[in-house]
Amino acid sequence: MARQSTRSTDSKKMNSELFTLTYGALVTQLCKDYENDEEVNKQLDKMGYNIGVRLIEDFLARSSVGRCQDFRETADVIAKVAFKMYLGITPSVTNWSPAGDEFSLILESNPLVDFVELPDNHSNLVYSNLLCGVLRGALEMVQMAVEVRFAQDTLRGDNVTEIRMKFIKRIEENLPAGDE
Amino acid sequence: MARQSTRSTDSKKMNSELFTLTYGALVTQLCKDYENDEEVNKQLDKMGYNIGVRLIEDFLARSSVGRCQDFRETADVIAKVAFKMYLGITPSVTNWSPAGDEFSLILESNPLVDFVELPDNHSNLVYSNLLCGVLRGALEMVQMAVEVRFAQDTLRGDNVTEIRMKFIKRIEENLPAGDE
Repeated sequence: MARQSTRSTDSKKMNSELFTLTYGALVTQLCKDYENDEEVNKQLDKMGYNIGVRLIEDFLARSSVGRCQDFRETADVIAKVAFKMYLGITPSVTNWSPAGDEFSLILESNPLVDFVELPDNHSNLVYSNLLCGVLRGALEMVQMAVEVRFAQDTLRGDNVTEIRMKFIKRIEENLPAGDE
Repeated sequence: MARQSTRSTDSKKMNSELFTLTYGALVTQLCKDYENDEEVNKQLDKMGYNIGVRLIEDFLARSSVGRCQDFRETADVIAKVAFKMYLGITPSVTNWSPAGDEFSLILESNPLVDFVELPDNHSNLVYSNLLCGVLRGALEMVQMAVEVRFAQDTLRGDNVTEIRMKFIKRIEENLPAGDE
């Protein structure tokens, strides 16, 4: 069931480079503002959460994706629809846990880091951590509590970028009295 | 004459909403960091300048646009190629000064402000001021000194968003000795 939105779905398609450089300006500013990388990571996650909480409405209106039946379907929608829509890439979904409650998104390229080299004195910075917050915030709005973290990052010398997602619980909807 | 770039021109096309919300997070952070709107405007312009200085190389590589013959051609390239490429919109070029050294870009919609309402206590904030800096920085790298400012802004109650650009001077290229 598609959700209605009052906002226009007449979207602007843009190349990613201005976004990439603007994101870099944001991370640089946070590195000036906060004492250590861990604080910056936390702020990026928090900002991402606030973004995800708002972006989900746009996503549901634009994608006409309905409620996912299970976490596997959620994983596919995130990789093939959401990442494609908002970052122009399609990560692969892999490394499922035996219980089916954890998977990885493998990003062969990450548009956020296109112009970036991490300086030596920021070895603990999770540069793209905003994305974890976005995913956490967006999924919370569709009643899914998840943990999201970077497991690998090309910026830190890994071969690929890997975002690890873990299902925590389904959040109870508070239905208004009388609703069916 | 197209400039060569070592960077891949395999661009990612993305919807603008994640960029819009991320830009909002940046402005919000600057509003926390600086005492008044004028300081925030200045910072946004400065950040934009640093972005423009880097974005121009990507633009030249991607667009294959050569050196512009005059300011009118520059105006057209900015509106029809650059804005289209990086923001997905095509402003109209208008309000030329009689001397041909000033024009306006009229943005019927501005993707940066899609989710935004300016709070009452930020009446002097030029929310999208980053764009002025980007234009100034990018043009400086192709030997054009310009002044850029918002003349009208829908966020501040105007009917359209108008960016006013004024040509200041051509910057002398320092040619290496022996270059032709």
